[in-house]
Amino acid sequence: MNETQTLARFVAESRWGDLPQAMRHEAKRALLNWMGCALGGCRDDTVERALTALNEFSGPRTSSLIGRHEKLDALHAALLNGISSNILDFDDTHLRTVMHPSVPVAAALCALAEYRPVTGAQFIQAFVLGIEVGCRVGNAVSPWHYAHGWHISATCGVFGAAAGAARLLGLNTQQTAWALGIAATQASGVREMMGGMSKSYNLGHAARNGLIAALLAERNFTSTVCGLEAPAGFAQVLGNKPHLDELTSGLGVTWELAANAYKPYPCGIVLHAAIDACLQLRAESGFAPGDVVSVAVRMNPLALEITGRETPASGLEGKLSVAHAVAAALVYGAAGVVQFTDACVREPAIVELRRKVATQADTTCDKAEAHVEIALKDGRRLARHIAHATGSLEKPMTDADIEQKFHELAASSRSECDAWDVIEIAWSLDRLNNAAKFVQAAAPDPTMTLSLRS
Amino acid sequence: MNETQTLARFVAESRWGDLPQAMRHEAKRALLNWMGCALGGCRDDTVERALTALNEFSGPRTSSLIGRHEKLDALHAALLNGISSNILDFDDTHLRTVMHPSVPVAAALCALAEYRPVTGAQFIQAFVLGIEVGCRVGNAVSPWHYAHGWHISATCGVFGAAAGAARLLGLNTQQTAWALGIAATQASGVREMMGGMSKSYNLGHAARNGLIAALLAERNFTSTVCGLEAPAGFAQVLGNKPHLDELTSGLGVTWELAANAYKPYPCGIVLHAAIDACLQLRAESGFAPGDVVSVAVRMNPLALEITGRETPASGLEGKLSVAHAVAAALVYGAAGVVQFTDACVREPAIVELRRKVATQADTTCDKAEAHVEIALKDGRRLARHIAHATGSLEKPMTDADIEQKFHELAASSRSECDAWDVIEIAWSLDRLNNAAKFVQAAAPDPTMTLSLRS
Repeated sequence: MNETQTLARFVAESRWGDLPQAMRHEAKRALLNWMGCALGGCRDDTVERALTALNEFSGPRTSSLIGRHEKLDALHAALLNGISSNILDFDDTHLRTVMHPSVPVAAALCALAEYRPVTGAQFIQAFVLGIEVGCRVGNAVSPWHYAHGWHISATCGVFGAAAGAARLLGLNTQQTAWALGIAATQASGVREMMGGMSKSYNLGHAARNGLIAALLAERNFTSTVCGLEAPAGFAQVLGNKPHLDELTSGLGVTWELAANAYKPYPCGIVLHAAIDACLQLRAESGFAPGDVVSVAVRMNPLALEITGRETPASGLEGKLSVAHAVAAALVYGAAGVVQFTDACVREPAIVELRRKVATQADTTCDKAEAHVEIALKDGRRLARHIAHATGSLEKPMTDADIEQKFHELAASSRSECDAWDVIEIAWSLDRLNNAAKFVQAAAPDPTMTLSLRS
Repeated sequence: MNETQTLARFVAESRWGDLPQAMRHEAKRALLNWMGCALGGCRDDTVERALTALNEFSGPRTSSLIGRHEKLDALHAALLNGISSNILDFDDTHLRTVMHPSVPVAAALCALAEYRPVTGAQFIQAFVLGIEVGCRVGNAVSPWHYAHGWHISATCGVFGAAAGAARLLGLNTQQTAWALGIAATQASGVREMMGGMSKSYNLGHAARNGLIAALLAERNFTSTVCGLEAPAGFAQVLGNKPHLDELTSGLGVTWELAANAYKPYPCGIVLHAAIDACLQLRAESGFAPGDVVSVAVRMNPLALEITGRETPASGLEGKLSVAHAVAAALVYGAAGVVQFTDACVREPAIVELRRKVATQADTTCDKAEAHVEIALKDGRRLARHIAHATGSLEKPMTDADIEQKFHELAASSRSECDAWDVIEIAWSLDRLNNAAKFVQAAAPDPTMTLSLRS
């Protein structure tokens, strides 16, 4: 059996009992984190314009748009929820590949679960298997693939969505291998899209295409069963000397979801240590922004190269500016969605404090590390070294952190969903008879619900 | 202005008067040839299974499935007609890139024209511009791109579909550039799919995705305006030292559609010269298959490497077997769709004659050239040398040849369309008030038409 078939068999034959308790719980954390990101992004112009363009092509409106009253057919819902959950750059990160693994899988599965009822346990299992396949494909082509210009979250995410959907549809090994083949030939997304609407489109596209792959395979629309490893297949064409052993080595023993990280702040992950330091110092010492004379940040040179921008012009640029992140954290005592908006980037108090931030490259620093020293008017010098930021694998966000993040994101959108309700459903997902309740709780619309029931 | 923007401006601003009369006529030839291929493929299992899988997701059923009574929303119709028109490997070939250029463009535009009415002239212009963009993108990344494993008809075809749809929607230069950016990030399709259902899926996928790109751009869903040439854009990521000048050099002066070729036989193009020779000798000398003692074919070594298969097991394999093509042509005096079916490949008379075919590699032969010598029982030896096969640029199919091919394809499907009617509409397309008549003539369904009109 080749790699594609081995993965396909694993997806088709894995049992609930094969899934470690820790992974079942991690799936809930990932899904809650993902759902929060979708709520935070659901009113963005990116979503509005895509919806305006595609709404009139929707088939039967079975599937919810998270945080909104509209429904779409399952394929379009997968696309739109994939877009909304990636917009804020706040979704999870598989650190080894820099993939955002949950978006394509969760967006595809939520849309499908409203169309073909499944239990919460089935949903969790499909999700974990989808993440596993997507990240393993990413491992096989990393680091060359992303460095070459591929948007790895999309190109590899489509395999995750296909695998997860294949599992949820109950496909056999042969059909699942075909689904992976159809995913291989739909894999797309280039990094030139970063920083614009099409960046998030890539992830929605992966979600929808993965779902299509599984739906086609279900009807015995055939494909190759060597889509990943064949000479003219995914890994050879979109990779360079791929590590094919990464596709199957330790399958069922190690779990890629265990290597998944959640962001506490919606900005470049290399800024998180500096933000942690600033938030801690401000909370402990209680100084006001006006008390600050200067801020010195020492970081890894590569991390600084990406985030050295001193005068960001937009919220998007602020997400990759250490000066802005530090200033916003010190002024607000927070680094959430509102701290990376266009408005916040232009705020006079922030602009003033940003000018006082000096950065220094330090080759002894790891990319995720930061030293911050704040000089105050009263002569005090406050210093903090953060080796591992909140949200790193060494210092993961707690369940309470993820709940708190969810509350903030839910509040930032105009969705009328009950955040507590969604959180409760997420933690009890493995006991739900109908997994659709999870997504429906985040897209409440009494009118629509009534009309569908009548 | 960079390459993407220059192409976008060309697409947005080109006038009807800029289009040479010869290209207007060539567009009709390409469209009639394409429509015939769609009719020939419309009942294939590939179409049936895709339709079964996706039918239930269709939005408002505005757009025809060629040769069938079903309608689908414009996006799904573009996908399905893209699949059906490529299945037989009988569609056109842009010889320089080996792209099948018409499928993605025509499938997208036909689906769109039923959704947003346009005149026949607008349709022709959008089609020619779509072909121009798709083939130029292909030129820019050839020959490395295909050799590396990319299914160029799909990866570059999506740009053609996007450009054509952008033109039909009346997008401005900025929006057209965005559409090309969204096309760039959707470009996909690997050659591992060749020989299976997913091969044709690639082209349908390109048609639908190109259409989506234009529809998104129409609603100002933004993207990069450097999707083709940027360091992490299409040509650099999916190419290797691309020839970016091919994108714009001679734009509006030379036309890629002029370099488009139509196949007289639904099999590998390198077999066409040998088939021509056999058909000519049989027609001239009137021998029976049983009179043949041996057939000697001399061909280019590379062409033989691809088509040297002596005992094909299926119609698909027969399309790449010189022994089969020669035997079928000599037995039937034809080399049409029925000569490359599973049934024909297994026919005793064909199998017997196949054994008498001997091939010889000749380095002095061009890839499109063939020498055939037939020894008959009465001692005669008939020889024919074909330098340029029918359908080559040197010896193009005449309009009458294309009509004849259309008739054969229309008859081979169970469609009830009036072939003469479609042909007449095709030749008068530039004078039609509503271009949708062209596709609707090839998908007649009185019941459906009535219910839509009522």
